[in-house]
Amino acid sequence: MERVLVSAPGKVILFGEHAVVHQKHAVAASLDLRTYLFLEKTSDTLCTLHLPDVDLEQRQWNLTDLPWSLASTTHGPGHPIQDMHPELEARLAAFLGEVPNWAQRQSLMAFFFLLLTLAPTSYHEKPTGFILAARSFLPVSAGLGSSASYSVALAAALLILFDYIPTDFLTSSDAAAHLEKINSYAYKAEQVIHGNPSGVDNAVAAYGGAKSFLKGQGFETLQGFQSLRLLLTNTKVPRSTNALVAGVGRRKEKYPQVINPIMDAIDAISLRCKEAFLAYHETRLDFDALLTELQELVDINHSLLYALGVSHPSLEKIRHISSNYKLNTKLTGAGGGGCAVTLIPNDADQLLIEAAVEALEKEGYDCYQTSVGGVGVAAVSLGETDSVEWMTKAAVSTLASKFSF
Amino acid sequence: MERVLVSAPGKVILFGEHAVVHQKHAVAASLDLRTYLFLEKTSDTLCTLHLPDVDLEQRQWNLTDLPWSLASTTHGPGHPIQDMHPELEARLAAFLGEVPNWAQRQSLMAFFFLLLTLAPTSYHEKPTGFILAARSFLPVSAGLGSSASYSVALAAALLILFDYIPTDFLTSSDAAAHLEKINSYAYKAEQVIHGNPSGVDNAVAAYGGAKSFLKGQGFETLQGFQSLRLLLTNTKVPRSTNALVAGVGRRKEKYPQVINPIMDAIDAISLRCKEAFLAYHETRLDFDALLTELQELVDINHSLLYALGVSHPSLEKIRHISSNYKLNTKLTGAGGGGCAVTLIPNDADQLLIEAAVEALEKEGYDCYQTSVGGVGVAAVSLGETDSVEWMTKAAVSTLASKFSF
Repeated sequence: MERVLVSAPGKVILFGEHAVVHQKHAVAASLDLRTYLFLEKTSDTLCTLHLPDVDLEQRQWNLTDLPWSLASTTHGPGHPIQDMHPELEARLAAFLGEVPNWAQRQSLMAFFFLLLTLAPTSYHEKPTGFILAARSFLPVSAGLGSSASYSVALAAALLILFDYIPTDFLTSSDAAAHLEKINSYAYKAEQVIHGNPSGVDNAVAAYGGAKSFLKGQGFETLQGFQSLRLLLTNTKVPRSTNALVAGVGRRKEKYPQVINPIMDAIDAISLRCKEAFLAYHETRLDFDALLTELQELVDINHSLLYALGVSHPSLEKIRHISSNYKLNTKLTGAGGGGCAVTLIPNDADQLLIEAAVEALEKEGYDCYQTSVGGVGVAAVSLGETDSVEWMTKAAVSTLASKFSF
Repeated sequence: MERVLVSAPGKVILFGEHAVVHQKHAVAASLDLRTYLFLEKTSDTLCTLHLPDVDLEQRQWNLTDLPWSLASTTHGPGHPIQDMHPELEARLAAFLGEVPNWAQRQSLMAFFFLLLTLAPTSYHEKPTGFILAARSFLPVSAGLGSSASYSVALAAALLILFDYIPTDFLTSSDAAAHLEKINSYAYKAEQVIHGNPSGVDNAVAAYGGAKSFLKGQGFETLQGFQSLRLLLTNTKVPRSTNALVAGVGRRKEKYPQVINPIMDAIDAISLRCKEAFLAYHETRLDFDALLTELQELVDINHSLLYALGVSHPSLEKIRHISSNYKLNTKLTGAGGGGCAVTLIPNDADQLLIEAAVEALEKEGYDCYQTSVGGVGVAAVSLGETDSVEWMTKAAVSTLASKFSF
């Protein structure tokens, strides 16, 4: 490969946020707001990065300056994936020098860690250059898995660069093994970025579709999950996930007899969602009935999150506005602001949806007409003529639309 | 007695509405919006009624025209209370003639049934006249027990008229037995009015304070129940209790695994309320902590009712407005409109409460600054100089304030 375009989706929690902390099922699905990553080999030994979303433009490093001596020789697929050694972390920090913001630092640390981890020993001795550029359509710190989307795209791009997987990994006979590799390395990058991620975000970004998950028990793919139209609304109200999670914990401790059954009810909602898709898959439920169930479950789940004390006036306003258009909305993620998801029936009148969006935007919220449950990570080789203008999202969007991902 | 003023409170459900239909605990408390009833003996054989709240003013009947032959001779305290015989009902209907509205018909049927049931045999032969007037401060059909309040005041007034209980029954040594008599006859009147009442409304109107109840298991008085300030807001949005109850039933049937634990959570809220008052009673909890718990439970219970699908945009608006004043609100009763209750801390800034009321009234809602948990039915002998102007609520209010009930 000489030039490759990779992309990976974000994620939304459809059901079970907060309850998942208390050993209950949750359901997350891929969100069709994607991170795009472009990688092109060069003939020098320079690594040129464009990460405009974290305020990094056109930075260059000489690859020969990297601390290759600390990169384990037991790295790369086929070996267990190492954690980042504290000494390596310190050396990388020194290598990067002063970094203007946390997001840029984490993005660079994850990138260089994956590079050092994945490069074969031959590359240590004679690194060849490349340009890497990334651009995300996901709002950051909004609970939509923007870092996992970046980590998955990054892992895929580097695995392709070092020929561990083909560019058309999705259509190869080993697709499952390739995806597993991408997901494993993406999880490592997520660890570098977040410390102790659940692994849900990268799994959804890698595999797409929807997953149910239960703490300590891993993930299960939702059979028959159907890509659904979704209106995502970002309140832009900042909130602390930790404080919200702690608040629910306190409420549970004070009123266990009240809160425990609420957690059970949320658990049942996630399981019912899974069962509804299975029933649809097995043609025991038609699509309209499936959508009705999902809308009812959205409504009930939001109310239960409200009972846990994690809603916010902005989220209630979005619910109120969307209900005027006969649409059902719930908060997604930690709540207390953040984002809300509104299911859109496939046959909804587009004028009605536009009117709802207008009413929401009038209140100052950002709206995204997107979908959930679509494809996970994907890659394509670019021709020489495909120009890549990473500084504008419009150009990235135009390029991506050529490959329909 | 020659002239007596009787009053009885309304009721609000504090916790557990809807869940009570599904064999869960609920808590109801007396509401200090009362029905006042005045009774004065006359020297003729006429019964003169003023019931302005049901559009009946200054109607007279000759008591000798009543179907006394059908009134059981085994009536009155000491005998089991009879149901209204269909023949008696038909005769009473004929006696009343055309009645302009349902509320007036039920009020008159209940009154004449209690009169025929309670009058001793000697009275059958030689009835002596009286004037009876009633006025209620309770909005009707708002789930606030206005009919039970009327039934209880009516039963007490007639039991006093026929000397079965003294006017100062509350302070007599037999107070408990007197209240039980009043409550039993009030329940019969409620049956005439409603067909199949739960008995909660009349028990709360008779005894005051707060009761927890469980279908088929009767009532339990909440120990240590403290009279609490309450803001009652009437959305005036009409709704069908039957349709709302049926809607919850359908949701429970469709999603039993989701809705059953929600019912359990509501059950736990009612029991926690009971336990909180007991803890306060036994000085294990101070008043501020009690109020904090009640406010949190109000918030959670409302959210769960929202999950059951019985909230309404008007109720959410009231919650939103009151939350701007740091006040917690829940719907009370069937929901889908109707009334909302807002707990007011005893030491709340009155200017703040007035501001909240103004904001709510601006939206077109009716607000009542009242209290819950106060005294039940009470009576007092009136002096010759106490004039009774039943046509204006202000006059009734002035009279009642002289006796502080």
